[in-house]
Amino acid sequence: MNFRLTSRSIPRGFRFASAACGLKRSGRPDLALLVSDAPASAAAVFTTNQVEAAPVTLSRRHVRRAAARMRAIVVNSGNANCATGAEGMAASLETARAVGRELGCRPEEVIVCSTGVIGVPLRVEKVFAALPALGQNARNSPAAFSGVTRAIMTTDTRSKWAAASCRIGGRRVRILGCAKGAGMIAPRMATMLAFLVTDAAIAPALLQRALREAVSRTFNCITVDGDTSTNDTVAVLASGASGVRISSHSPLATNHFSAALESVCRKLALVIVRDGEGAQRVAEIEVRGAPSARAADTIARTIANSPLVKTALAGADPNWGRILAAAGRAGVPFDPARVEIRLAGIRVFARGKPLEFDERRAHRRLLAPFVKIVFHLGGKVEKGKGKREKGKGKIGASHSPLVASHSASIWTCDFTGDYVRINADYRT
Amino acid sequence: MNFRLTSRSIPRGFRFASAACGLKRSGRPDLALLVSDAPASAAAVFTTNQVEAAPVTLSRRHVRRAAARMRAIVVNSGNANCATGAEGMAASLETARAVGRELGCRPEEVIVCSTGVIGVPLRVEKVFAALPALGQNARNSPAAFSGVTRAIMTTDTRSKWAAASCRIGGRRVRILGCAKGAGMIAPRMATMLAFLVTDAAIAPALLQRALREAVSRTFNCITVDGDTSTNDTVAVLASGASGVRISSHSPLATNHFSAALESVCRKLALVIVRDGEGAQRVAEIEVRGAPSARAADTIARTIANSPLVKTALAGADPNWGRILAAAGRAGVPFDPARVEIRLAGIRVFARGKPLEFDERRAHRRLLAPFVKIVFHLGGKVEKGKGKREKGKGKIGASHSPLVASHSASIWTCDFTGDYVRINADYRT
Repeated sequence: MNFRLTSRSIPRGFRFASAACGLKRSGRPDLALLVSDAPASAAAVFTTNQVEAAPVTLSRRHVRRAAARMRAIVVNSGNANCATGAEGMAASLETARAVGRELGCRPEEVIVCSTGVIGVPLRVEKVFAALPALGQNARNSPAAFSGVTRAIMTTDTRSKWAAASCRIGGRRVRILGCAKGAGMIAPRMATMLAFLVTDAAIAPALLQRALREAVSRTFNCITVDGDTSTNDTVAVLASGASGVRISSHSPLATNHFSAALESVCRKLALVIVRDGEGAQRVAEIEVRGAPSARAADTIARTIANSPLVKTALAGADPNWGRILAAAGRAGVPFDPARVEIRLAGIRVFARGKPLEFDERRAHRRLLAPFVKIVFHLGGKVEKGKGKREKGKGKIGASHSPLVASHSASIWTCDFTGDYVRINADYRT
Repeated sequence: MNFRLTSRSIPRGFRFASAACGLKRSGRPDLALLVSDAPASAAAVFTTNQVEAAPVTLSRRHVRRAAARMRAIVVNSGNANCATGAEGMAASLETARAVGRELGCRPEEVIVCSTGVIGVPLRVEKVFAALPALGQNARNSPAAFSGVTRAIMTTDTRSKWAAASCRIGGRRVRILGCAKGAGMIAPRMATMLAFLVTDAAIAPALLQRALREAVSRTFNCITVDGDTSTNDTVAVLASGASGVRISSHSPLATNHFSAALESVCRKLALVIVRDGEGAQRVAEIEVRGAPSARAADTIARTIANSPLVKTALAGADPNWGRILAAAGRAGVPFDPARVEIRLAGIRVFARGKPLEFDERRAHRRLLAPFVKIVFHLGGKVEKGKGKREKGKGKIGASHSPLVASHSASIWTCDFTGDYVRINADYRT
């Protein structure tokens, strides 16, 4: 991140704490707590993987039971508590109970999250031992929040946070978020772990809608390796402490707030891709001119997950042939003879034929930390309805069929030897 | 391959030749010709990629026009002649014409194939210059066929061939095949380049059916990187020179022949995975107990293409959590609590819980060149129809629903740093 977190950015009504409770062999921080002083409006989206971790199952239930009025989020790293059977579910439930005792709230008001290796029993007694100090030390400060961002890391190389604020009715609303994730990233409905807190006053249903929309345009549009995690959770708590009310009766305020929420989600999503395991650079794959938004999305995802495209990105190789081949296997019909491809602003392919371009210049441009790739299918922009094509004396002649032009963007990273090293050595 | 090619294995009625015509910068052989002395029955399957190379488009047309009575297959490596526009199509067509002139046949009787980099104009004059010598030097010999297997290689580290024969009515029918492919391998309908020749006498329609079935169970069940090529072609020519007629009137002979054809396809498919770019080992992913064959296939493919599973394989890491997570994102509903996973014969997960196992022993077993992974969804084997469950005094009570058990196997390879090196350095 290119700016520092100051106390001005910390939403009112929350406290944060973190500790090293011994789940990570390295001795690094591995337990975090986010507390709302009073019951906060909550919204959350979870993984769509058929295999979901115990904390996901439990938190889904808790958000429903507490009618989305929550007090806390507790997170451990170093262990995903996934595929751990009835003991795993008991561990998550006991964790929620222990947090409830510390804060004087019901277990249902606690969201529980875990991240790390799958299938290893969670040594929950370590969590219990650390919780009392965590509850007592929780603070509304940049340092305390930074501690949380570090305690949720696994293979992440940097801590990830983003902040935004907006003025509504002359008053300031703050949104602050943090996230973790570097591998097993290919969210479709939700993704990895991300926690947002805001001091806006907003009803849970409206907050859930705003979160769902923001996630669909941000976290759900990134990929590191095409593997969707079993523990994906994005949760937001709204304390209301700013005194600013966001309601569906004031669409302007809602739009302001939603835009700020989405901007925090986007920053967090992009910083996850940038920190993708072994990644050197981020590529935005933009597909244009598609017959539908779904078709654009499918082609963009297929290009973004192609190992051959991602290794070419690692070599900064302007190898557009692999992009074309990946698009061709996406299962969406298109006419290759109308395709246009741009790599980092350089047109390399148009109308079914390669164009002459300076390979060295393209290579240099592709070495940048952020690269944009545009794949245009050649669908025409829909003409203004009722408008006639002008000129050429063809008035009244049959027009070429109007093709609607849809687009989609997916953010991916390059695929390097380091990704393999990180993942071939993860456990053994 | 663990046996040597002898003249006994070479089907009668064919001649083979190869040369280095200068398309590969390395100066290695890059042009191959397979000739049938008389018009041969032909069958072929091609890529399903929306973007198909000029030689694929042309060969598809030729097989149809010549009513599947073909004389030759000409193949160049070092250039895929894909996405090369009208000039690319002209190059393939001129190549077929030149071969026709050499052999005294129509251009339509020639199958043209290309493999290599996409989007670079094919320097077809180099092919023309080499063709006359190729036509004159073609021989029915092991050495000549071995030359073909080498001339079609690109990133392959070894040449790939397989042979089979069967006795029908006391007489011998030979089937011999060769293939290339190491990257951009994820065939669904056809795959990479593979050429088979047989001296059976068989009508094109029956040959096409036999080929299609064999391909669906062999080439279409392998993956190296999930990327389907633009040039995939599998073609078989049947000369009839053995004098053995295979017809639908003799199902036994047809079955014998089909089994031999499939065995050649399977050997070639497996040797492609074994030579997958950077691969150290092959894994068979077998999914059992699925509600349908399609569900089994989808889950097996998702596991087989997961970068996290493939990098764990590279590290010989018994990380079954990644297998479970990959299966969970395949889009097929299942109950994780009924799943059982076996790695190299070791049961590591059952009924939603990890089992205790010796990790070191599992690691050692996973270091083998061939590893089998079984993912059982827990669907019951369909009970014999009309049979009653015995014992337990429950006769007449309602039975648990009979669940049909379907299975599927996909062969994949591990994902190593060498894959990245090979593909990040391919062109630049």
